[in-house]
This record gives sequence, C-alpha cells and structure tokens, in this order.
Amino acid sequence: MTEGRLKFWGWGWEGEGATAAEIAHLKRTYGAALDIDGFPDGPPPRADEFDLPAPRLSPPPALEAICASDPHTRLVHAMGKSLPDAVRMFDRQAPHLPDIVAFPETEEQVLAVMDWAAGAGAALIPFGGGSSVVGGVEPKVGDGYAAAITLSTVRMTGVAEIDRTSRAARIRGGTRVPDLEAALKPHGLTLRHFPQSFPMATVGGMIATRSGGHFAMLYTHIDDFVESLRTVTPAGAMESRRLPGSGAGPSPDRFVIGSEGSVGVITEAWLRLQDKPVHRANAAAAFDDFHAAAEAVRAVAQSGLNPANCRLVDGEECRINGVSDDGRHLLVLGFESAHADVAPAMARAKELVQDHGGKVDGSGHAEGAVGRWRTAFIRMPYFREIVTPWGVLNDTFETSITWDRFPEFHRNVMAATRAAIRAATGRDGIVTCRFTHVYPDGPAPYFTLHGKADRARMMEQWTIVKQAASDAVIDNGGTITHHHAVGRDHQPWYERQRPDLFGAAYGAAKRALDPAGIMNPGVIVG
Amino acid sequence: MTEGRLKFWGWGWEGEGATAAEIAHLKRTYGAALDIDGFPDGPPPRADEFDLPAPRLSPPPALEAICASDPHTRLVHAMGKSLPDAVRMFDRQAPHLPDIVAFPETEEQVLAVMDWAAGAGAALIPFGGGSSVVGGVEPKVGDGYAAAITLSTVRMTGVAEIDRTSRAARIRGGTRVPDLEAALKPHGLTLRHFPQSFPMATVGGMIATRSGGHFAMLYTHIDDFVESLRTVTPAGAMESRRLPGSGAGPSPDRFVIGSEGSVGVITEAWLRLQDKPVHRANAAAAFDDFHAAAEAVRAVAQSGLNPANCRLVDGEECRINGVSDDGRHLLVLGFESAHADVAPAMARAKELVQDHGGKVDGSGHAEGAVGRWRTAFIRMPYFREIVTPWGVLNDTFETSITWDRFPEFHRNVMAATRAAIRAATGRDGIVTCRFTHVYPDGPAPYFTLHGKADRARMMEQWTIVKQAASDAVIDNGGTITHHHAVGRDHQPWYERQRPDLFGAAYGAAKRALDPAGIMNPGVIVG
Repeated sequence: MTEGRLKFWGWGWEGEGATAAEIAHLKRTYGAALDIDGFPDGPPPRADEFDLPAPRLSPPPALEAICASDPHTRLVHAMGKSLPDAVRMFDRQAPHLPDIVAFPETEEQVLAVMDWAAGAGAALIPFGGGSSVVGGVEPKVGDGYAAAITLSTVRMTGVAEIDRTSRAARIRGGTRVPDLEAALKPHGLTLRHFPQSFPMATVGGMIATRSGGHFAMLYTHIDDFVESLRTVTPAGAMESRRLPGSGAGPSPDRFVIGSEGSVGVITEAWLRLQDKPVHRANAAAAFDDFHAAAEAVRAVAQSGLNPANCRLVDGEECRINGVSDDGRHLLVLGFESAHADVAPAMARAKELVQDHGGKVDGSGHAEGAVGRWRTAFIRMPYFREIVTPWGVLNDTFETSITWDRFPEFHRNVMAATRAAIRAATGRDGIVTCRFTHVYPDGPAPYFTLHGKADRARMMEQWTIVKQAASDAVIDNGGTITHHHAVGRDHQPWYERQRPDLFGAAYGAAKRALDPAGIMNPGVIVG
Repeated sequence: MTEGRLKFWGWGWEGEGATAAEIAHLKRTYGAALDIDGFPDGPPPRADEFDLPAPRLSPPPALEAICASDPHTRLVHAMGKSLPDAVRMFDRQAPHLPDIVAFPETEEQVLAVMDWAAGAGAALIPFGGGSSVVGGVEPKVGDGYAAAITLSTVRMTGVAEIDRTSRAARIRGGTRVPDLEAALKPHGLTLRHFPQSFPMATVGGMIATRSGGHFAMLYTHIDDFVESLRTVTPAGAMESRRLPGSGAGPSPDRFVIGSEGSVGVITEAWLRLQDKPVHRANAAAAFDDFHAAAEAVRAVAQSGLNPANCRLVDGEECRINGVSDDGRHLLVLGFESAHADVAPAMARAKELVQDHGGKVDGSGHAEGAVGRWRTAFIRMPYFREIVTPWGVLNDTFETSITWDRFPEFHRNVMAATRAAIRAATGRDGIVTCRFTHVYPDGPAPYFTLHGKADRARMMEQWTIVKQAASDAVIDNGGTITHHHAVGRDHQPWYERQRPDLFGAAYGAAKRALDPAGIMNPGVIVG
C-alpha cells in the first residue's frame, strides 16, 4: 500500500521533491532561457497559514468515522496540481474548500454519503489521486449549494480478482497505479498504463478522466483497457458485463468513461492486462525539420506497425529537458512484446524514418535518450513547486488533430500562444511541442510553455495565456483535451467543442442518475 | 451506383440468388445431415399475393415527391432478412407494414419527415440496407402510434470528401459498401469493413448497428473506424469534431454508435480508411480437439501479432459449408499489410499454433480453404430463401465471452440449443460454432443451427429455439449480440444484459432528442 501523507501544496507525498541537482539545473535552464536572475525560495505553505472557514455541515453519526475536516485533509482536497493551483497554494489562498472529506470503504457508504449530500443540499466532489491539472476536483460549485463534500475513493482499494486466462483483473476504484502494479507483478501481468500522474493516480480516476498512458498507439487511453465497470450513482449502482467485445446497443462503459464524476463514482473495474514484455527495441532519430519529422511519424503511424513508443519531441523541448541540445528534433521509437521478436518491425520503422530524412542513431545512444526522456517525464511534475515562486509561467496543454490540418494547426497554436505570453508578460516566452500519442489519422500534440511572469500577477497572466491557447486549439479544429480531461478549467471550450444536442442528451441522462444534481457540478454537465 | 430493385422476400437484388449447383449441394447436405427428403419448391411471393391494408396517412404536399406507398416498396421495408422474416414472406404475411416510405435526399427533408411523423403521431423507422436479422427495421410499434413511416437513407449517398493525408473520408449515410469501395479505389484506399451484408449495407446502418467486419482483431467493429458523425435527431442535427483521439468527456460518437435509429438518423460520417494491402500471408491449421484449437487462438490473440484473419471453424461447420469434411476443426489465419512484410508475424503465429497441437497446412491448401470459406460466407444469405420452403430451421446467433468462461459457455450454449431443437422439432438438429472475431480477453463465438422443422409450425419452433439459445447466452454471461445488433428480437435479453440504470439514463437522453418518442420505438429504448 502507498503510505504517507500527500502534499497539499505540491506534487506527490510529503518528503518527496526535486533534488538539489535538479534545482540547480532548473536555475541554469531558466536563467539562460528566460533571463530569470532571481530565484527566491518559496517556502512551502503550512496548513496553519491558511484562513479556513469552519465547515458548514457535520456528517451524520453513521458517517462520522469515515469523515474528516481537519485543515490538512481539507487542503489536500481543495484543488489539484495545475499552475494556478500551485500559485494559489503559495499565496496561501484556497478559495474553494470542501467542508468535509468522506473516505468510504464500501459502496453502501458511498451511497450513504450521496444521500447525505443530496439531503443537505451539498455538492459532492469525487476525488481519486487528486492529480487533476484542469480544476476537476476543486469544489468551486457556486452559490447553489449549501456546502461541498469531497468523496475520496482511496480507501476502496485492491485487486479483488485476477483472471490469468483472459488476462484481466477486477480492481477497486481507489487503487493507485503503483499498488496495482505491485499486486499484478507476481502473476507476470501489468496494466502498462502510466500517465505522468501514475504515482498518485487511481484506477477509478483514470477511467473517469480518460487518462492517456504508456502506449503511443492502439491502447492510448485507458478506455481501451476497460472490460467492464461498476459505478455507484445517486440512483444506485450500475454494473456492465465483462465482455471482450459487444454490439449490444450503445456502450454502457463509454457512457461512464470520461464522465469525470458527473454521474457517479467508479467503484470497480475489470481491466484488460498485458504480459510483461521481454522483447524490446528502442531507437532514436534526429531531424533537422520538424514537419519532416511529423511526416515520418505519419508514415509510421499509418504503417500498421503500431509501435509502443512513437514520441516526437521538438528541438527546443529536448534542450529545455536536458535530453539533447543540438536543436534537432528527436523521434523516439520503441517496440515491445511478450511473445514475438520485435526486430523486424523496428527495422521497417527505421526504413520509414530514414525515407523521411531522419538520422537514425545506431550508437546505442537511443537507450540514453529514451532513458533521459523517461526520467525527465517522471520528474517534471515536481518542478512546478520549485519554479512557481521564481515567477516562471510554466504550463502545458494537449490536443489532437488530423494530419491534413496539423501543419497549419501547429503554426497557429504556437503563434497564438507565443503572442499571448508576450501580451501577458511583456516579453517573449518559449513554446514547445511534442507528440505524446499518434493515430493513423493524426497526432496528439502536447504543448509546453515557459514565460517570465510577474509573481504577483501570475493568476491574471496565466488566465490570458490559457484562454488564448484554448481558443487557438478550438478555433483550429482540435480537441480541448486529449488526455488531461475537461474539469472546470476546460468546460467553456468543451461546451464549444461538444455537439450542443449531445450536451442536452447527456445532461438529461445525468438527471436520471443524479436527480439532485449533486455530482461534481460544473464539470461535463454545465 | 448500385442498381435494380431489392427483393422484398429474400436476400439481395431481384435476379440474384442461389445457383443450380448450390441448390443441389444444399439438397445433398440437408438430405444427409437432417434426413430431409422432400425439397418442395418455394415459389417466391409476389406483391399482389399479400393482403395489404391501405396506408393510414398521406404525406404532406411538400414531401409527396420523396414518398412512396406502392406494395413493392412497402413490402421491401416491412421486415429484414431473418429466418422468421423469410418464413412470413413465404407465408405471404407481412403483419407490420410501413404506411409510407420516405426517401429524403437532404437533411432538411429528414427533419421534415420527422416533423411530419411527430405531428401525425406516427412511428418513424430508419432503414439503411435492410439486412437486419433481428427485427430492427420492422414497423412493429404497437398500438400507441397512429401509423408507421419508414425513412430510407438510400438517396443520401456518396463520398463527399477524401482526406488522403489522414486516410479518412466523409461519407453520406446511405452509401452502400460496394459503392463506397468503388469511390475509394481510385485513391488506393479501402474501408476494409465487410460484414456479411456488405452488398446491401449502408454506412449509416453499419454505424447505427455496430456492425462487425473484415478484421478479426483490433478493428473488429465499425466503431473503431468512426472519426466523427453527423446525426439528425428530431431535435435537430448534431455533429462531432473530426478527431484522431480525444479525452474530452464521454464520447459523443459512442453515444450514437449502436443507437439503432432510436435517437436519430446518421446522415454523414468521417471514417478512417486503410491503404490497399500488398503484403499478404494466409495459413490454415487443423485440430483434432476444438478446445485445443481455442487455446491456440487465445495464444495468437494474446501475442500482440493482431492477425487480420483468425477464424476458427468447428469440424461440423466445415463439413456443412463444404470447406472440408474430415471432421477436424479449421483455423484460418491471415496477415495483411500495405507497408511491411508480414512473413515474420505469420511465422511466429504458426509456431504458437503448432505449440497448441495445430497441424499447419504447408501445401498451399490454405489458400483453397480460405477461398472456399470466403465464398461460403458471401453466398450463405442467399440460401435462406431456398431452404425455408423445405422446412429447414437454419439460424445463427453470436456473442462474446471471456476466455476463462469459454469452455463452459460453449458446452452450455451448445447443449441448450441442441435441447431446444429437439424440444421444438422432436428430433436432433445440428449446432456448430466458429469464431468470427477474437480479442486478447476472449473470443466472439458465432453459432449456427440446423433442424428439420414442420414447415407449418416454423415460427413457433423457431421461437422456442431462439428463446432457449438467447437465455443460454445471457445466463452464461455472454452478450446477446456481438455484431448482429439488438433490434426487436433481442430487446428482452438486451434489457437483462444492460445495466438498468444505463437503460434509464439512455432513455432520458433519448427523450431529450426525440421528445415525441417517434424514433424506432421498441428498439434499444424499450
């Protein structure tokens, strides 16, 4: 079991964080890239520095034992892990606190908490790993609710059943990824779904938010691993059948996947698993031209080879992350299998890459680049709490777009984001792009931005940039999120993207399951 | 463009049908297998042999030009192509006729027909290819409707746009598969989705019913090819964005895919396409033991090799279809690619098959078995109109189940179906099984039954067998359909399978889009 206390103001658990070497690297990087010269320490906030209003309600006696309202618990559940979350935490501001946090251990308790919330006129916010970067768990529910109760799933944990024959397991919703992998390992199985949030992420949370994981192709979202779901709604529990495939009506699972807590709490899932891979091949290729690299990725994505890893990182992003510093764009390719030699697929993929001007690194350097990228990827979330006090405006957003529109989309989104940083901060920033996942019909571009902000005006400056970038994504045909979810931050753009009538239909469906309208109000159903 | 008139009483177009050689083969087969000795000709019905009630309503003047109510048109749209449909047609009985059939050419006309139906208190039945074998298009809507209008999509046809770069096309909903393929061929592209109904099937109909196609793995259902949809509901049109992948809320496309006309009419879809394959490898392997063969399929399905074809046909089914007659079970494997050599994957798949006791045929005979199977598959639907007058009870049903439960599931479903044939007809019949599609977590078994019925009691005898088989599928954990859809015939078992609360939620969503409740009543939303 994962142990310890989550930080309420930063990434991961108390005691974890960036190393001295990492902090030194960040100073060098931002000193050079953004001309930042002061690196004020940002002493982490303590709970007693916050001015917390008293809870507006008390749990009924039967639920007292599973409820908490101490300051630390309320602050842990006050927001997620986004840039504005970090800014506000360092400002000692938590404007939307849960009054009470409930930790049910059974579905009966989940239903009892829902009944309590409905009776009390309180909003109910489901909370898994708490790694939302889109305001998905912040109890910002407006004045229509008498209070806010957060329902944490983290005491509903464990692998209830393993079906080795079908390679699937029944997993309780609050199970965190590391605990899941530890339970599967003795069976030679793995979910192999590792979002950047994996140390904290819970199975139910990943499904509710359509998380993106390890595989660059085929099994990009957790959606693809869901065999069946059990969801507790205010109207009761609903459970789909375990089926490898079905054509019986619209998928009941796809109705819940992506609901982000707006219709219920995912208490259990049968997930499809993988055998541990034993055959592996990695390669890296460098490109002078980013769009030539994108064309190489398109060729690989349309080849049917379906690499596990197919991540294109632009030159600027390589430099910022210490992956390489020659300005060239890096394509990292990986194949893996538990059952078959992957060398033929890699050989063909390299041919395709070379046909498009990629210089394949045959020196074994690829393993180094792959490893450096993986380390950078895992460590990145810990850096927000370091650089926020320095006034570094560092954020990400991600999307997908069809190949035909990608060049123009990339140009327009990069330009709009750069212009917004300039408008917001008065100086040039940096915007980089990588592909996290790819499809035969298009890539999932992931943008990272860096700007030198005014620490006192960061929320305002961030809002300008976020709005401009989101407008550019939507205006140019993308999705407001490929795998970061909608939350409250993306809801206005989600409502522009989603067909209006689908919104009306889903809203009606929600009301059938949540007649009191308590479930995560303002998310998905506006 | 596909030309000619559809048969109202049988498969395909007027003038098509079984050849003399095929009929002779059917006589030999059923003579030997079921001891059938009389083969009475079943002269096809003529429209003037039906006692048709007058239409209960007339189209408004603005829609007159796109409406028909002649006997042939009403009979074509009176039912689908199932066994009970054939029996009733040969009985000159069409108990649930549409009063009027509308053939809109534009979305405005679709909406006008919906308005007309709602105003007239009429049910509206969307109709694509008309190949339903589950009562999906029969206007059996009960007494709550003043009339029934069928809305045929077949005048909304054509490929509106091809995006060669992303390999996708925008296709109007009424486009039939052969016409689609003809339009894509000059571009070197193909949908490569060929349900058994492909000569008639329309793009919109396949999406509405979650059809199963060519690929045994990965892209089993048309669901996987849908990039975006445009659907006209009584409340208006809704259109999703073209996106290679998204995590923005529950999928609006998955809400429509499988709706079977219960919320609207799919007027347009962007579908993902394939390059024409140039690398191909086929192999066949014979097994003495069916469950050893299933284990071989499991090994292949869990290998990550993802063959395009992985069809296991039991020995009895091989014999009945003239594929082979030695009683051994046949596994047909195929790999195909437009971009990479498939020999390494085939070599590894053969090893897995041999490890499980399969005798791989290295003589080139595989191509023969593959070809014979494909021909049998395409021709089968034409045989119903031949054997129904003989009193042959020949039907199919299909499902999916996880591997851990497959052996018991197979035993129980086979036993229940055999017992039901015996109970219904007083004599033993034949039940066979093949896998049409496979997944890492389980197969999609497809059962075929043959019994010697009493021609005068076929509807009653079929009902006994259908109910018993469906009960066995649901009681043993399967899905009532993997790719034949729900329709009216499967609705009672679908309601047992589907989570009740999902039914309530989807019903509420339907009412938001179809407030008058006119769309295909009794299907999906009961």
